[in-house]
Amino acid sequence: MRIDIMTLFPEMCEAVLSESILGRARQKGAVEIRCVNIRDFTADKHNRVDDAPYGGGMGMLMQTQPIYDCYQSLCGAGEKPHLIYLSPQGKTLTQERVKALSALPRLVLLCGHYEGVDERVLEEIVDEEISVGDYVLTGGELPALVLTDAVCRMLDGVLPNEEAKALESHYNGLLEYPQYTRPPVWHGRAVPEVLLSGHHENIEKWRHEQALRRTAEKRPDLLEHAPLGDDDRRLLETLKTASIHPTEETQ
Amino acid sequence: MRIDIMTLFPEMCEAVLSESILGRARQKGAVEIRCVNIRDFTADKHNRVDDAPYGGGMGMLMQTQPIYDCYQSLCGAGEKPHLIYLSPQGKTLTQERVKALSALPRLVLLCGHYEGVDERVLEEIVDEEISVGDYVLTGGELPALVLTDAVCRMLDGVLPNEEAKALESHYNGLLEYPQYTRPPVWHGRAVPEVLLSGHHENIEKWRHEQALRRTAEKRPDLLEHAPLGDDDRRLLETLKTASIHPTEETQ
Repeated sequence: MRIDIMTLFPEMCEAVLSESILGRARQKGAVEIRCVNIRDFTADKHNRVDDAPYGGGMGMLMQTQPIYDCYQSLCGAGEKPHLIYLSPQGKTLTQERVKALSALPRLVLLCGHYEGVDERVLEEIVDEEISVGDYVLTGGELPALVLTDAVCRMLDGVLPNEEAKALESHYNGLLEYPQYTRPPVWHGRAVPEVLLSGHHENIEKWRHEQALRRTAEKRPDLLEHAPLGDDDRRLLETLKTASIHPTEETQ
Repeated sequence: MRIDIMTLFPEMCEAVLSESILGRARQKGAVEIRCVNIRDFTADKHNRVDDAPYGGGMGMLMQTQPIYDCYQSLCGAGEKPHLIYLSPQGKTLTQERVKALSALPRLVLLCGHYEGVDERVLEEIVDEEISVGDYVLTGGELPALVLTDAVCRMLDGVLPNEEAKALESHYNGLLEYPQYTRPPVWHGRAVPEVLLSGHHENIEKWRHEQALRRTAEKRPDLLEHAPLGDDDRRLLETLKTASIHPTEETQ
């Protein structure tokens, strides 16, 4: 897979993409990521890429020409790559969409900045608008990096351990169970005994129940789409009864 | 306001926080942001901060001691600063929460990494868990940077133009209207005439209507919480009727 990030801040993006898991994945060749400076494509002799909005108002808008020419340089002769504009106007990103995007051979991500982008170039080149959440940021760079990170970790050869993908939060629709490492007792808090038992079946059962409990407590909305078995539903019923009648036993 | 980011990748965070609007805000002293390396606080002689999970399983967990000691070093003698753990288990971040957090004098953000963090240190120090969205990332650094960016742009003296804050997406509950800058015609696409009219009242009316239309089209869920006037409701009714009976006029 290849991802091109069109931005006015390529060094900032590079710094994030060179570290940790993504940095190693790029070195290994598991994914190809390039940060392209939109400013390199301006036809303005003063290197400007923005101008004041028609109709008045605050701030500066990114102009059509540098963005369009930057995108053209990435298109080449073949099929146009899928262009995603990171914007609060887009559809909210979900793990399901991440999974679908990770199956594409190529993505181009456009980061807006300043107060916005001239609408006409968006109409002409954007295939999809994505928002990473319902909050406002100073630019599209962090959302592009979030999307890149989420998509890349789905690719083969990126995570150090392939199976880890399947076990993590949201991937199977439940939050993660609590985890513990050494020391066995810390600040008077002991690791749950079952985890020290070596009994794999009991450990799996405990972890699954904990994941269910946590999801019910912290993100009950996720249960609507989670793949639940009969045992899971029974446990959830018990939890619900316990929280509705917390003093039942003492009555 | 002061924000401390506890991370294993301080250089990566610094690179993002030194650029653009946030970089300038830090230089001006509008906000103080520090990236603290959790690894600097490990008591392990090999500088390790992680270990295998009890009960088996993939990957490595961040241990209690380095995180706890790192947090203690930030606490000092006074009141404990509000500690936010960035995690898919947290409450989903909204602009409303961003606004509330921006009123606090100090935040400490804890970035998890590897496969997770020993639960016990989370139980002991975390005040709030926040998720930036329903997707999985390789670490808590990008979420911490997203939160920092969103919070900082609400602070006085951070955005180049104060009024800009009030006009942008999500801030007033509607998506932004389309914007245009020079040239007046590009690839056969002309800037809407009203924007060239110089008639401020008409321009404002057009922009507000466009914002309403876009929100109704792309994010109708936002309309539930948006502050709408009677005119707004009438326009939305018209739009609804138009989309239900698109051929009414020709009947």
